[in-house]
Amino acid sequence: MEVFIEPIGRLINEFSKLPGVGRKTAQRYAYKIISMPESEARAFAEALVDVKRKVRFCKTCGNFTEEEVCGICKSRDHQVICVVKEPKDVVALEKLHEFKGVYHVLHGVISPMNGVGPNDIRIRELLARITDNTQEVIIATNPDVEGDATALYLAKLLKPLGVKVTRIAHGVPIGGELEYTDEVTLTRALLDRKEL
Amino acid sequence: MEVFIEPIGRLINEFSKLPGVGRKTAQRYAYKIISMPESEARAFAEALVDVKRKVRFCKTCGNFTEEEVCGICKSRDHQVICVVKEPKDVVALEKLHEFKGVYHVLHGVISPMNGVGPNDIRIRELLARITDNTQEVIIATNPDVEGDATALYLAKLLKPLGVKVTRIAHGVPIGGELEYTDEVTLTRALLDRKEL
Repeated sequence: MEVFIEPIGRLINEFSKLPGVGRKTAQRYAYKIISMPESEARAFAEALVDVKRKVRFCKTCGNFTEEEVCGICKSRDHQVICVVKEPKDVVALEKLHEFKGVYHVLHGVISPMNGVGPNDIRIRELLARITDNTQEVIIATNPDVEGDATALYLAKLLKPLGVKVTRIAHGVPIGGELEYTDEVTLTRALLDRKEL
Repeated sequence: MEVFIEPIGRLINEFSKLPGVGRKTAQRYAYKIISMPESEARAFAEALVDVKRKVRFCKTCGNFTEEEVCGICKSRDHQVICVVKEPKDVVALEKLHEFKGVYHVLHGVISPMNGVGPNDIRIRELLARITDNTQEVIIATNPDVEGDATALYLAKLLKPLGVKVTRIAHGVPIGGELEYTDEVTLTRALLDRKEL
């Protein structure tokens, strides 16, 4: 006999598909659902289906939206475009309430190791957005080998179009201590030093 | 403007209700759902609703079941009853494939601090199950203040009915080292020593 009855076993399996969730955690989540009122479990299930049904990608920037074009693309100045790898990077930047331009989500970075070439991510769409009106493209891919390579590749494509291309700064995090900063970051911080 | 569009924000809220899940983890889970094929998200949602619709408590032992009486109560010997706090404790014991009797889930333990008295847990139902046929009641509540108190309380009720009442052993875990065993456990291990 199975240790779990079928509906519980099935729910545990579904929870196990979430990132970083093992059997034991999935089990805790399932028990929580069992202890919920049915209306709450129903609302949860509805939210799950709704997110798949309603969320699509903005045809301009590639970010999540419920409409054709996302709220950011509709309401903001398109002179400055910030290029990111994934929609969640947009969330990280939006939380700052600092950047007033628009975004361009690549949906990946160039990674020959994983068989991802320039044509597999939204680079063509980025180039199509560059007009005489475009003042600056800020490249905010992650500071890893693939993010850096993608940034350099984009810079090479964009500069001939007469647009200013910048990269977000990398260095010692604010509040961080030199002693505990890894060597790669510290080297970068030294190379990218600024005159005061 | 909200950082997340409505359907994503709502799903993040739902995931945040799970035990030990904060905003950041809920966000990761939501992104995973967005990246799933729609059929998979639907299956997930269905499992959520199904668990609430199909799972109920066995009217004999109080464990989870899809029917009136659970598979364990239906097929096993009722001479030995193992008393546990919650359905998940049944799962833990069933994994051993060692115990051949039936269970009784109390759905809680006596806890005056939390306002849980003997009438708030399934003690009456346990007493109703004791017949001339009952050989032994094994009390497997957790070895904490409340679990111990509940065990003593049950023993006092059950012994006059002429049934053997036992408690699972507590002591140094197998593979554990004396040096790293906490003092309470070690004291218990010493008091409960067995003649070889």
